[in-house]
Amino acid sequence: MTSNRNGAVRVITIEGNILEQNDRFARQNRAYLQARGIYTLNLLSSPGSGKTTLLVETLDRLKNEIRCAVIEGDQQTSNDAQRIAETQVPVVQINTPQSCHLDAFHVRRALEALPLDGVELLFIENVGNLICPASFDLGEDEKVTLMSITEGEDKPLKYPLAFHLAHLLVLTKMDLLPYLHFDLELCKQNAWRINPGLSIIATSVYSQTGLEEWCNYLRTRVRG
Amino acid sequence: MTSNRNGAVRVITIEGNILEQNDRFARQNRAYLQARGIYTLNLLSSPGSGKTTLLVETLDRLKNEIRCAVIEGDQQTSNDAQRIAETQVPVVQINTPQSCHLDAFHVRRALEALPLDGVELLFIENVGNLICPASFDLGEDEKVTLMSITEGEDKPLKYPLAFHLAHLLVLTKMDLLPYLHFDLELCKQNAWRINPGLSIIATSVYSQTGLEEWCNYLRTRVRG
Repeated sequence: MTSNRNGAVRVITIEGNILEQNDRFARQNRAYLQARGIYTLNLLSSPGSGKTTLLVETLDRLKNEIRCAVIEGDQQTSNDAQRIAETQVPVVQINTPQSCHLDAFHVRRALEALPLDGVELLFIENVGNLICPASFDLGEDEKVTLMSITEGEDKPLKYPLAFHLAHLLVLTKMDLLPYLHFDLELCKQNAWRINPGLSIIATSVYSQTGLEEWCNYLRTRVRG
Repeated sequence: MTSNRNGAVRVITIEGNILEQNDRFARQNRAYLQARGIYTLNLLSSPGSGKTTLLVETLDRLKNEIRCAVIEGDQQTSNDAQRIAETQVPVVQINTPQSCHLDAFHVRRALEALPLDGVELLFIENVGNLICPASFDLGEDEKVTLMSITEGEDKPLKYPLAFHLAHLLVLTKMDLLPYLHFDLELCKQNAWRINPGLSIIATSVYSQTGLEEWCNYLRTRVRG
């Protein structure tokens, strides 16, 4: 059931203008980042999937071999940026109290504030929301969608865009598998129905599962 | 950091119009439901918090004493509505492929499709998204926010509106507490910073924790 009243048509029209304007900034960001040889990942997920926890662990493993930087998006608080800052990796927090996603203009302003000299790998941690952020190109090289296995294996079917546009799906909190009613194989099949051949890495920071596979994925992105 | 370019101002203006139009439909829904003596809850949460699982369990417990009905919101699939239908409670599925939340017009159309004779308690399961649905009044009597404890105790601070507007916070998946690094007391304190005095019920369908407390909450809403 979808609304087709006049109001809805207006929303779609305006949305088009917003997305056009966003895409212009995204193209500028992409050109700016690629000219500097910075590989950029846009991390998407539901709230509480463990994006920041994975990122802190990743930075600790990579920071002595790859120069990294982070843009943190949140509706409120700078808690996540503070956790990243403890790794000594440069980080900028963007708060979006009026918005449910990062857009390319947010990222442009963050890029102006970040010390990018020598940076090779930029992580953009999007606002925790499996829907809206997927529609906004930020100028990244690829989208990485994270999904906690506590969310259930049906999520790729229910929120398809974030899975359809992802280059990689990172499953998180694999340490909880023995305590959940979660069918890993079915989850993968659901993801592949939306995005055939999608790469999937199953991880847990607490049990240290899949972290080298994830870090190797990042190394190949930077070193080729 | 917030965007203040012209484009953003336009978004806010249009958003205002959308919300005004929504509120008009919400007032109509509220009058329609209250005239029929139907108490209505709008359930908000992140994807995968266990809204449908809690709802199925709730309907099984209440359906012989309170006449219930359900409106299911999802971006895609009617899987949740099928799960509800197995309880024999009337249900309508709304798919919102272009939208990240239910609005009052969606609900109006669902009300036209639902057999409401004798219904006393209506659950509206919103799209899985802790941000956008909070901004849209559907005509409900109260919002109930669900949060899986796997999401972490900081969520009330990071996504404050859904917690600020809630009449009740239902924590889910309490059976996983022994396997998580989750501080229940801190979570409650965070929720109360956003919404002082907010009622909180901690539940698990798998360990049957808190379900009678939750059902009693619903009984008092219907029976007074």
